Amino acid sequence: MPITPPPSTPQHAGLFVSFEGGDGAGKSTQLRLLGAALEELGREVVLTREPGGTDLGAAIRQVLLHGDHVAPRAEALLFAADRAHHVATVIQPALDRGADVLTDRYLDSSIAYQGVARALHHDDVRDLSLWATQGLLPDLTVLLDVTAAQGRARRGGVHDRLEREDDTFHEAVRQGFLRLAAQDTDRYLVLDAAADPAQLHEAVCRELGARRPDLARLALR
Amino acid sequence: MPITPPPSTPQHAGLFVSFEGGDGAGKSTQLRLLGAALEELGREVVLTREPGGTDLGAAIRQVLLHGDHVAPRAEALLFAADRAHHVATVIQPALDRGADVLTDRYLDSSIAYQGVARALHHDDVRDLSLWATQGLLPDLTVLLDVTAAQGRARRGGVHDRLEREDDTFHEAVRQGFLRLAAQDTDRYLVLDAAADPAQLHEAVCRELGARRPDLARLALR
Repeated sequence: MPITPPPSTPQHAGLFVSFEGGDGAGKSTQLRLLGAALEELGREVVLTREPGGTDLGAAIRQVLLHGDHVAPRAEALLFAADRAHHVATVIQPALDRGADVLTDRYLDSSIAYQGVARALHHDDVRDLSLWATQGLLPDLTVLLDVTAAQGRARRGGVHDRLEREDDTFHEAVRQGFLRLAAQDTDRYLVLDAAADPAQLHEAVCRELGARRPDLARLALR
Repeated sequence: MPITPPPSTPQHAGLFVSFEGGDGAGKSTQLRLLGAALEELGREVVLTREPGGTDLGAAIRQVLLHGDHVAPRAEALLFAADRAHHVATVIQPALDRGADVLTDRYLDSSIAYQGVARALHHDDVRDLSLWATQGLLPDLTVLLDVTAAQGRARRGGVHDRLEREDDTFHEAVRQGFLRLAAQDTDRYLVLDAAADPAQLHEAVCRELGARRPDLARLALR
């Protein structure tokens, strides 16, 4: 597929924020903290996640687990189908009625993970996602940058099962996220996931308060 | 998605023929007749169909029937996922080992049907399919052109359930196929589905015999 930017990011009334980063980066904690802060301002907040934020998405996950083998392009198309339905039935309707949407992972995760794990071109995965979402991009993407070693420690669990190869994989995904952030500095806020969660939350609030006059009060927390 | 032709049609050893046309056009009859003729020449022949030529495709069909509503772009992506897996696991491996592949419907059906039934652009549906198939196009596409009225008569069944609206739909699909054929005359052979099946088969054999020296004997049948 050829590489072109989406026609233009659709306008929406609500705030749309995605949280990205490797497993163990602390995305869900920051999502909940920001959700609570926005609700304190009297705003309607929808918390969601990918993949599988819808019933159809759950059914698609079953298909992905179905056989011994799913062709790589079929897999990418199934993830994109999940996202198309998620945007059309959950995210866009919420934004249209003025609600804020916070999602744990969005299209950047597809690009970072599928670009590393599969023999697919980053730009192809991005174009598929942009078609699926009709070009809908977050107002802000918070990248919680975590090194492979930090992520491993924070995920906890049985460390000896996480082999050296896993670190290589997680580090490649991390570099994928950092490249995406470097290409779209207006949309991205990159934070060191090793910092204190309260400080990270403050940084997110400061950024949003500075960007949107209607959220200026966030920055004063 | 932007509109570009595929990089170039991949080469393959076997012959790849798709049969297209509305329901009742007689595709499966012609598919079987050509399959038998090729086998008489001592060739390995794989007969297949879309959608759902694989186990994964059958699982995807279940997802499509799953809920009350599937977002149009999610639906298009699910069809494309089915096709990607079909090509990667059935069609391309068969062609690579030198077998001939005859398929009842391929990507032109998606373009003709989804372009009419859904609010999606023809070119988008085509680009998705070409990405899914890695640009694999048939050597020959036989369009069995059938009018809405002929198709209705040949499908048989309870005629009074087929309302006027159905004829409008089938006629729009027919015009979609004819447009595709006009845009790619090298790939398409358009035949009047109302003709005698034996005569249609002869016309298909003549066309293939003229195109490929290794199939010249087909034209002599």
